[in-house]
Amino acid sequence: MKEGKFITLEGGEGVGKSTNLNFVKLLLESRGLTVVTTREPGGTVLAENIRGILLENQQETVSETAELLMMFAARAQHILHVIKPAMEKGHWVLCDRFTDSTYAYQGGGRGIDVSMIEWLENNVQQGIKPDLTLLLDAPVAIGMERANKRAALDRFELEKQQFFEKVRATFLQRAKNNPQDIKTINAAQSLDKVQHEIALVVRALL
Amino acid sequence: MKEGKFITLEGGEGVGKSTNLNFVKLLLESRGLTVVTTREPGGTVLAENIRGILLENQQETVSETAELLMMFAARAQHILHVIKPAMEKGHWVLCDRFTDSTYAYQGGGRGIDVSMIEWLENNVQQGIKPDLTLLLDAPVAIGMERANKRAALDRFELEKQQFFEKVRATFLQRAKNNPQDIKTINAAQSLDKVQHEIALVVRALL
Repeated sequence: MKEGKFITLEGGEGVGKSTNLNFVKLLLESRGLTVVTTREPGGTVLAENIRGILLENQQETVSETAELLMMFAARAQHILHVIKPAMEKGHWVLCDRFTDSTYAYQGGGRGIDVSMIEWLENNVQQGIKPDLTLLLDAPVAIGMERANKRAALDRFELEKQQFFEKVRATFLQRAKNNPQDIKTINAAQSLDKVQHEIALVVRALL
Repeated sequence: MKEGKFITLEGGEGVGKSTNLNFVKLLLESRGLTVVTTREPGGTVLAENIRGILLENQQETVSETAELLMMFAARAQHILHVIKPAMEKGHWVLCDRFTDSTYAYQGGGRGIDVSMIEWLENNVQQGIKPDLTLLLDAPVAIGMERANKRAALDRFELEKQQFFEKVRATFLQRAKNNPQDIKTINAAQSLDKVQHEIALVVRALL
């Protein structure tokens, strides 16, 4: 059987990842594909437990290294139990955030050495990399305005503007360095226009 | 001010780590030292949360890589919030398990590549290594008999004899390779004899 493909949606806070993940899901299903939607950090019981620890706004400050290792621990679990088995069954996997977010948040935002992230990517992911990454990009102010309308802010959403500027810059730099794999979508446009662009990119993969 | 020292107690299940940790604590305190006792995985709120996830006997199988990364995530947090600050204050730190357990359980027991553990040790621990490690060693059957008398067995204690033989062999090999740092104590002897040997080794450090 033909192996399924792996698509990730990336971007800062409030750029519309959830809405557009669902849009891509419907688009793929309309072509008769079986689609598994999931998210990071998370996607399995254990990985969602790690997510809880990571996003909870604790009194205890979280070591940057601990944060990075927990992201990859959750990812190892997610690949083993969800992503790899689904693709082997021929299903397509749509994931809200993946390793590009680690480069952007822990690398760009926190300033962790990129070589450390690369080592983990190479040693943890068993060769699993996205076939396509949709980077939803919008100015930080626009994304934060949307994110602030949600219920409670998590430990990342409470970071300062400067942090998110670094996150955004890292995402854009990665897209520039990997134009074949990462497609940047202007998420500051109307939803219609965003989804028109997404559809063009996703159809090219079919 | 003089920096405190870092002593770890290592060994398989049921070798008497808790009892002897308390013995070493009293011995050091009798010399006027301030002693912080702690354990791994754990020692901080976040690290104890990780411990809970790791030791709980879940339905979801835990990826070996995820287990390894969670151990080091907890360790990063433990070093940042407990071990390093205590030593900087001149306190002595006594820890029930540390990185030797990772080599023994995840390396020896699970078969994870040693180079991966070494990379994490070098990149996560900020140069923190024990000044002395007491390896309490006993035949697996003796330790398991003691461990089985406790309430409920955790995810590690439920492993098979063969796993624990590999754990024990790895501990002993590490002690053989690092005779200056790791002192092996025959934990199958009477408690009096065990503590006599421990006292000799610890006093040599004072």
